[in-house]
Amino acid sequence: MKILLVGAQGTLGRAVAAELGARHEIITAGRRSGDVRIDLSDRDSIVQAFAQVGSVDAVVSAAGNVAFAPLLELTDAQWQMGLGDKLMGQVNLALAAVGHLSDGGSITLTTGVLADQPIRSGAQASLVNSAIHGFVMGAAIELPRGIRINAVSPNVLQESTDDYAPYFRGFEPVTAARAALGFSRSVEGAETGKVYRVY
Amino acid sequence: MKILLVGAQGTLGRAVAAELGARHEIITAGRRSGDVRIDLSDRDSIVQAFAQVGSVDAVVSAAGNVAFAPLLELTDAQWQMGLGDKLMGQVNLALAAVGHLSDGGSITLTTGVLADQPIRSGAQASLVNSAIHGFVMGAAIELPRGIRINAVSPNVLQESTDDYAPYFRGFEPVTAARAALGFSRSVEGAETGKVYRVY
Repeated sequence: MKILLVGAQGTLGRAVAAELGARHEIITAGRRSGDVRIDLSDRDSIVQAFAQVGSVDAVVSAAGNVAFAPLLELTDAQWQMGLGDKLMGQVNLALAAVGHLSDGGSITLTTGVLADQPIRSGAQASLVNSAIHGFVMGAAIELPRGIRINAVSPNVLQESTDDYAPYFRGFEPVTAARAALGFSRSVEGAETGKVYRVY
Repeated sequence: MKILLVGAQGTLGRAVAAELGARHEIITAGRRSGDVRIDLSDRDSIVQAFAQVGSVDAVVSAAGNVAFAPLLELTDAQWQMGLGDKLMGQVNLALAAVGHLSDGGSITLTTGVLADQPIRSGAQASLVNSAIHGFVMGAAIELPRGIRINAVSPNVLQESTDDYAPYFRGFEPVTAARAALGFSRSVEGAETGKVYRVY
């Protein structure tokens, strides 16, 4: 398979590239690096990247930023960022992908444990991750030509605990390599409209 | 209790007013009618309405528009509308409410069955409703002074089946009066971070 991987240089993206790259051709995409440049918050960059890459068998997003801040301190700019980047960025990626995916191809988006379990300063992340779960469920029944769409929802990554541990006390971290198995399930499996929780 | 009810003139809003109005003082709000005017997509209107109304014990939203269209035909304007109105409009209402709610007061938002069960042309509604479920879960643990937040997720309303029946074949409609019980549970109960499904 030819797989476009957005966020390929991130902690999760590198693990996904290692898992899927063993068996498939990976085209890497990122804001500042990769075979093509994609900034999820900039739809033109998505459209241009697909024009460069042409047809693919799978599109995987291991990217997307949200703002972490106390609920009543979230600024307008932070709301716009989270909704524009991890939420609508991934939605726009999925919608743009349709015209470039082979029959039966797949789209895989990234969410996270905060869709199911809240933490302080995490309300926007809970909103965005849940929104993508709803989108995946809704989009799955409308995609043409057998194109599939799923999400992977990992727990906090072990590799990121230096940065995030104080927010996630008591959460059981997972390795990026284990989270990457969820992407393998989505890309190499046959299901659609699913959320692969790696908790 | 003094309750601010947004969308008071809608099918659901009238039923909520009938249910809660029997025991409480209702301040009605709507785009074009009501004691005060609130357009969820216009945050200034929310702020101005709270300035007029002052302190309340509960804020209830029975409002919010999303776009229904085939997934690949949703326009930018339709995405902006749905995310700005039912999603961020209700989020902004909730955040603006905090400064005007009494200790232990409540916020109740409206979602709908598409958060859990998809239909054709309903992907945006599934996204938005799921997003609000995530927000309610996340916000509940951060609200100060015992302020609570919940959502009510009704099935398609019996009163709306003339308009929506072709989209919701096989769904079991509920009366607006039955859906209004979910709002009673939220406003007059003691729970927070809950979704009251009326399916």
